[in-house]
Amino acid sequence: MAKFLTNREENYAQWYNDLVIKADLAENSAVRGCMVIKPYGYAIWEKIQAQLDKMFKATGHVNAYFPLFIPKSFFSKEAKHVEGFAKECAIVTHYRLKNDENGKGIIVDPTAKLEEELIIRPTSETIIWNSYKNWIQSYRDLPILINQWANVVRWEMRTRLFLRTAEFLWQEGHTAHATREEAIEETQKMINVYADFAENFMALPVIKGYKSENERFAGAIDTYAIEALMQDGKALQAGTSHFLGQNFAKAFDVQFTDKTGKLDYVWATSWGLSTRMIGALIMAHSDNNGLVLPPRLAPIQVVIIPIYKNAGQMDSISAVAKKLKADLEAKGISVKFDDRDNNKPGWKFAEYELKGVPVRLALGPRDIENNTVEVARRDTLEKEIVQMDKILTHVLLLLEEIQNNIYKKALEFRKENTFKVDTWDEFVRILDNPGGFILAHWDGTIETEEKIKEETKATIRCIPFDSPDEDGKCIYSGKPSKRRALFARSY
Amino acid sequence: MAKFLTNREENYAQWYNDLVIKADLAENSAVRGCMVIKPYGYAIWEKIQAQLDKMFKATGHVNAYFPLFIPKSFFSKEAKHVEGFAKECAIVTHYRLKNDENGKGIIVDPTAKLEEELIIRPTSETIIWNSYKNWIQSYRDLPILINQWANVVRWEMRTRLFLRTAEFLWQEGHTAHATREEAIEETQKMINVYADFAENFMALPVIKGYKSENERFAGAIDTYAIEALMQDGKALQAGTSHFLGQNFAKAFDVQFTDKTGKLDYVWATSWGLSTRMIGALIMAHSDNNGLVLPPRLAPIQVVIIPIYKNAGQMDSISAVAKKLKADLEAKGISVKFDDRDNNKPGWKFAEYELKGVPVRLALGPRDIENNTVEVARRDTLEKEIVQMDKILTHVLLLLEEIQNNIYKKALEFRKENTFKVDTWDEFVRILDNPGGFILAHWDGTIETEEKIKEETKATIRCIPFDSPDEDGKCIYSGKPSKRRALFARSY
Repeated sequence: MAKFLTNREENYAQWYNDLVIKADLAENSAVRGCMVIKPYGYAIWEKIQAQLDKMFKATGHVNAYFPLFIPKSFFSKEAKHVEGFAKECAIVTHYRLKNDENGKGIIVDPTAKLEEELIIRPTSETIIWNSYKNWIQSYRDLPILINQWANVVRWEMRTRLFLRTAEFLWQEGHTAHATREEAIEETQKMINVYADFAENFMALPVIKGYKSENERFAGAIDTYAIEALMQDGKALQAGTSHFLGQNFAKAFDVQFTDKTGKLDYVWATSWGLSTRMIGALIMAHSDNNGLVLPPRLAPIQVVIIPIYKNAGQMDSISAVAKKLKADLEAKGISVKFDDRDNNKPGWKFAEYELKGVPVRLALGPRDIENNTVEVARRDTLEKEIVQMDKILTHVLLLLEEIQNNIYKKALEFRKENTFKVDTWDEFVRILDNPGGFILAHWDGTIETEEKIKEETKATIRCIPFDSPDEDGKCIYSGKPSKRRALFARSY
Repeated sequence: MAKFLTNREENYAQWYNDLVIKADLAENSAVRGCMVIKPYGYAIWEKIQAQLDKMFKATGHVNAYFPLFIPKSFFSKEAKHVEGFAKECAIVTHYRLKNDENGKGIIVDPTAKLEEELIIRPTSETIIWNSYKNWIQSYRDLPILINQWANVVRWEMRTRLFLRTAEFLWQEGHTAHATREEAIEETQKMINVYADFAENFMALPVIKGYKSENERFAGAIDTYAIEALMQDGKALQAGTSHFLGQNFAKAFDVQFTDKTGKLDYVWATSWGLSTRMIGALIMAHSDNNGLVLPPRLAPIQVVIIPIYKNAGQMDSISAVAKKLKADLEAKGISVKFDDRDNNKPGWKFAEYELKGVPVRLALGPRDIENNTVEVARRDTLEKEIVQMDKILTHVLLLLEEIQNNIYKKALEFRKENTFKVDTWDEFVRILDNPGGFILAHWDGTIETEEKIKEETKATIRCIPFDSPDEDGKCIYSGKPSKRRALFARSY
């Protein structure tokens, strides 16, 4: 077991926390609920950012930046939004410190009190729509397709590294449209972008669907989500896209003249994905040896480790390794050659397993003689000997294979842990063991949804887009239902 | 004059503000002192970020992320730092809002008061060194070479878009080293990276030098800066790199065991560059027609504008334009083909001049017949007709030439506006007219520096690294001096 990870089967929560710390991804800071994202964890976020940013731009979006602070009064303008967000948040009340006259160090200057308190953004709809008001007069000014990369703060009481922190990093898209149809199309387009990203880059199979009214974004008409299943049978919401209707346009009085000269309120969407995704990445694929990273998001895709007894051996290995590194890099692969001499190969093997590097190449004196390399893949831990003249093609194909295999494995796991359930007893039993996704009929009422949550801690993750029309009876109330919803306990 | 810019010669400050607004770079927000960086302005910042990030990584640095909040007590730990930074800042005192019982909307919940106030980071030395304390035990843990891209807040009373805003975006490097020499080397390396970036990407000639004690970063042993001259004869500090000695290591008790087994405090540097650079970019190169952007940082490098009277003409122009766009893009050039039919070519010409697009290509029916393109360069506003089969090479060379020409022009301007001055009268006269950089002897005392500032508003921008040893007399006190300092009024 690498560096004393807690066993995943014994205590999943502790295994997760150990892994985040020991793989050097993040740690808690001196500020309650706020984490430090360490270089290796941040490198994964940079990969996520780069790929998503490319996908946003390919779908016509541009980036911009709006203020960190939101005047308190802005929240009150959208009735549901204030209920959802203006609660546990960080509030700036003063703008100056001073030396205490009684020598007690620095204190808040009571004379420097803000006239109106400022809230650190928990999400930016209000401050952004307050700007859009000045940007939009005519249909010619539409659509506005803006994304923002930013930090946000929600004063969570119980926090966990990456999964739930007071401050987190995310992107938030905020778009403005002339018609309802166009806004709905955008909402769908972006949940599809998220699903594409999750499946093809994070190797994370997701279920796309509608959120129930109860689980919708505060201020949205409709929320679409992608839901993923973690290895402990709990669900994780991995990204959401909201159709906001005209709610924020009405709250901030954003009207435009349409092609016929008629005044109307602007239609809106918003969509976001956060550093929480790193938590999903860890929990979906990793094992008792450490992280298992999909090659497309791994900061280091290939590590080369020399195995030598003396300087002479190291010299010839080093020459071969450097050439190999350069050749792989020329193919766009990120490679680390770990030639540090203060750690033994075995220690390094464990270290890069812990860090989830997809492919490990080991080079010893016999490899140099025989023109071979030992290739180990992180996902299955299998090893093989490959001829040096075939290594480039081999590694390129292997990285693709690992990417696909990780996805397939996660998809298999989800299939095995998704259950169609038609009785309440079975529902309760499966939730406790083995857990997982449950497709069950639901009468569509908030009351039933809340009762189920109270009694089992399971929530409606979404009503899958591809859930077929089907007559059935609500698992809880017995009332008629037309479609199954996806239930699970969740992060 | 494009879109009624104020004349630069009449009112430089107003010209600058008009330009920022009308070129759609940024605007003021509803929050005092905080700006909205609009997509076109943010696209420039993305170009700056991408290039700097590449240069940081090429010099061995990695990115990480530390909390937005700093506990108040952290500032008190470094005596000078607290004087410099714990004054005008945003202070979080509460963490919950609630509905007012008297129906006055939402109010701050008085029971949700933080035990210790949190300061929105004005700079992150304290929170970062508090983390480094846990990361560093031995010389093997060093160096730490970390950079952070982040937002910071300084509660400025008088703000100007990009140049001075309460919240701004920046990068801050924070490195930890085993020896004094290594830390000084890092400090120098990074001021050189900044100068390289300014000169070769922003086309902005800069003078590298030491800050006087009075102008140093609060908590630094030595501050190096790059100083640029704006078109109105005022200086702008474009980036700083600080040698922090062992000050922060001592304040946060960060010790390490060196190779000999001896315990010592860690040596530190920090260095930063902010969205202020966009202000410098605007002020250094632009003119009464609008922005002049250096090709290497221009979001759009080439714009193609069709000139047509009917749909038939547009069809043939469009086919040629799209091919041309694809060919240029294949060479790594960013191209916009503006085929909107709601604006006339003249309007578009003015629009892209305002936005500083380096090269404009116009295609009319006669061009299609003759196999030619009209090429206009933004820096000199010159136009020429180029044969279509030569256009790719022509544009590639022209972009390089514009980059060089903008730099040369700025360098010429600086040469013409840098004065060696040996008498107080001349010093005062030149500051008023024409302004610019003044190289003058100074006795090295804070008293004299402050007197000069009081009487003339000029400050010591830096003591240039390349200022030769030279016996002279202080311009103000007449006392002996060994070297000239660089004076100017500044932003």
